[in-house]
Amino acid sequence: MLCGDSELAEGSIWEAAEHAGSEGLANLTAIVDVNRLGQRGPTRHGWDTGAYARRFGAFGWHTIEIDGHDPGQIDFALGDARNTRRRPTVILAKTRKGEGVLEVENREGAHGKALKDPDKAVQELGGPRSVRVEVQRPEVDAAPFRFAGDGMKLPSYQVGEQVATRTAYGAALAALGSARGDVVALDGEVADSTKTETFAKEHPERFFEMYIAEQQLVAAAVGLQVRGWKPYAATFAAFLTRAHDFIRMAGVSGADIRLVGSHAGVAIGEDGPSQMGLEDLAMMRTVHGSTVLYPCDANQTAALIAEMADLEGVSYLRTTRGDTPVIYPPGERFTVGGSRVLRHTPGDRATIVAAGVTVHEALAAADDLQADGIPVGVIDLYSIKPVDTAVLAEAATTTGNLITVEDHRAEGGLGDAVLDAVSELGPRVVKLAVTDLPGSATPREQLADARIDRHAIADAVKRLL
Amino acid sequence: MLCGDSELAEGSIWEAAEHAGSEGLANLTAIVDVNRLGQRGPTRHGWDTGAYARRFGAFGWHTIEIDGHDPGQIDFALGDARNTRRRPTVILAKTRKGEGVLEVENREGAHGKALKDPDKAVQELGGPRSVRVEVQRPEVDAAPFRFAGDGMKLPSYQVGEQVATRTAYGAALAALGSARGDVVALDGEVADSTKTETFAKEHPERFFEMYIAEQQLVAAAVGLQVRGWKPYAATFAAFLTRAHDFIRMAGVSGADIRLVGSHAGVAIGEDGPSQMGLEDLAMMRTVHGSTVLYPCDANQTAALIAEMADLEGVSYLRTTRGDTPVIYPPGERFTVGGSRVLRHTPGDRATIVAAGVTVHEALAAADDLQADGIPVGVIDLYSIKPVDTAVLAEAATTTGNLITVEDHRAEGGLGDAVLDAVSELGPRVVKLAVTDLPGSATPREQLADARIDRHAIADAVKRLL
Repeated sequence: MLCGDSELAEGSIWEAAEHAGSEGLANLTAIVDVNRLGQRGPTRHGWDTGAYARRFGAFGWHTIEIDGHDPGQIDFALGDARNTRRRPTVILAKTRKGEGVLEVENREGAHGKALKDPDKAVQELGGPRSVRVEVQRPEVDAAPFRFAGDGMKLPSYQVGEQVATRTAYGAALAALGSARGDVVALDGEVADSTKTETFAKEHPERFFEMYIAEQQLVAAAVGLQVRGWKPYAATFAAFLTRAHDFIRMAGVSGADIRLVGSHAGVAIGEDGPSQMGLEDLAMMRTVHGSTVLYPCDANQTAALIAEMADLEGVSYLRTTRGDTPVIYPPGERFTVGGSRVLRHTPGDRATIVAAGVTVHEALAAADDLQADGIPVGVIDLYSIKPVDTAVLAEAATTTGNLITVEDHRAEGGLGDAVLDAVSELGPRVVKLAVTDLPGSATPREQLADARIDRHAIADAVKRLL
Repeated sequence: MLCGDSELAEGSIWEAAEHAGSEGLANLTAIVDVNRLGQRGPTRHGWDTGAYARRFGAFGWHTIEIDGHDPGQIDFALGDARNTRRRPTVILAKTRKGEGVLEVENREGAHGKALKDPDKAVQELGGPRSVRVEVQRPEVDAAPFRFAGDGMKLPSYQVGEQVATRTAYGAALAALGSARGDVVALDGEVADSTKTETFAKEHPERFFEMYIAEQQLVAAAVGLQVRGWKPYAATFAAFLTRAHDFIRMAGVSGADIRLVGSHAGVAIGEDGPSQMGLEDLAMMRTVHGSTVLYPCDANQTAALIAEMADLEGVSYLRTTRGDTPVIYPPGERFTVGGSRVLRHTPGDRATIVAAGVTVHEALAAADDLQADGIPVGVIDLYSIKPVDTAVLAEAATTTGNLITVEDHRAEGGLGDAVLDAVSELGPRVVKLAVTDLPGSATPREQLADARIDRHAIADAVKRLL
């Protein structure tokens, strides 16, 4: 693994150093090009390879400091790294940036700029040469180990039961792990909250504790899928923002990873806004090629967790902390890009579009409105991306009035996904979402305060009509 | 500063440790509660305070390992920390989680759970006591140092000049620094690209090089505003995703910070998707209480940079790498929440809404359409949040056809902001945005490939009509 000296200022480097050092990854060798110059100017430590050696050494690495322009020292260092046991090795190679080309050698202000006289530079470097080095190729086609699997027996819940979707996630992932030998799970030291612990207990050999290090959580998932595994990585939805750049780059790199964010929205109740996932749908929707799912009940969660195993790209499922009633019978299939029309009559005057915890609020609001003589439809939009454009278009062109309701900020979430899907049809859309800063209160109080509960939905429908 | 042992796995801790150690912050004392138990189970290093001491020591900190339950050792450690010069100190306090309460002391599975028998716990701890400790209060009302300032002379550019908005940002910030003694700037080791270097050269005493450490970049800005400074922190828009959680928490905490993201969108050209800010508008719009600005020319940029100085909350300005024509005369005022109607006739058949680099594409498309006998309006929506709902509503109800165009992913950006503003009015809206994965090409080719250039806009208008 090659990296620059300048990027050693990045916290993610030390998350990785701690992880590799603690695991004693002797087959990992990092080579740091210590050329003392960042993009803008000198780095903090310049050519002081000892400063880096002390840091890596403290994190449990074997360190070697060399002149990066001396082939003999390079050869020695690589041999030493290969022969090192029980520890990863870092080779700190002191170099001069642009070595051998007078115009740029060891000079500031030359980063990322074309040479003024490239022909002269080629001559300085010894003229055109055709050097070809054959290196030993890694055995990329070696079949990865697979754990044995037996038939799929997803957990099933009875309609009317009260079950948290995070609980269903844990149980479904454990069942998926039993059925498929390629499923692995990672968690950011909150497996008892996310419920990844159910998988960890049944399949300890395939569970990876990543501690409070969300960038490593995502990075390790990306690494595992390179070797053909099906990684599921979970933490609180709010804490996935720590790994935003890693998730973005997983999308750019075409990695197939599955993320699960728990404790979504104000519905977590008392713990306050720092713990509430209120930006996760927006963050995950913008990721290139991503899939974003948000189930409302335990059976739907189990089905979608199984569905994610064979998805390409970055997929994300959002879970709820508290119990919600089971509304779908066990065994129903939920396809990515689909939705469920939960209420519909030809006389519907509006359609409420919800997902997750707000589906239950929407159903209650529809009951209240029906009692007031106002029939409305309800759509469970469990697939936020891709979104069920056909069903939304149908609602937009029949009732012409849509009310979206989500336990997420008003920007970039379910409401925006619906607006985008029907934008060329021109229905009237009222978007209910979290707009203020929540405090600490019970889940029911939070939903009411954020104006996304059954009463707020009914009010919005009446206002629109 | 107090932190837990479990969170020492987080990379941001070591970014901060490197920063504090390198700066020799002797007035900083970190106290780590080493109780060996994370939320889910044991930490990596348990009670091995030496493991933490080696790491902090390597980063240049003075380290003290103590029994965290021994008042004598605590007193000694705090005194030692106060007397330490030229280095920050970390006190690694070995403790037993829940000390003194049998039900939970040093036990796993008790994190964040209520006690079964709280009365018994109070008795075990010695019964109800009323201990009140008076500590020395920090001098919070001490007036911070202010640099002298003179009159505001923002840079001005002539209409028709070709100037990159990032260049205008650097020049405007330098001018703002000359006018106001409370303005400070930070950059993530890319000041030659973002152009914060213009400020750094004129006001080196108020410029902070944060190296490649975006979480520290934002954290330091938050710290500076606590003391009454007006911090502007810049890096590539794409790299701000590294600091997403810090930005989110700055919003939750009510911090007044100003962020500037350069190299927005596919318009950067050749450097590829890892360097392109394509998710930044979505990320910044979801932040509680945020302001999101995206100027299209140099004079507008200068005006908005000055405007940001007195904004509350997290504000963000997006800049473009390449030169764009100056279209506004110097000295115009641009208010937050405003917009500019650049083209409008009573016969407009549609309205194009753009910002930043796409404003110039929209103007060119409008010219082409006019030549084809199709008059269209053009709005420069430089304030993405808050958005100019009145002007958008006017367009939505007069032409009834809106085309939004942005150099950003289709999710959560300008298009969604427009859809949200006019959702209850029901216009037809076509959203043009980046939907595929860009490669490496010239800026003009990139805009064409992403279908957000003048030709794509004109095609979209014709398709809609």
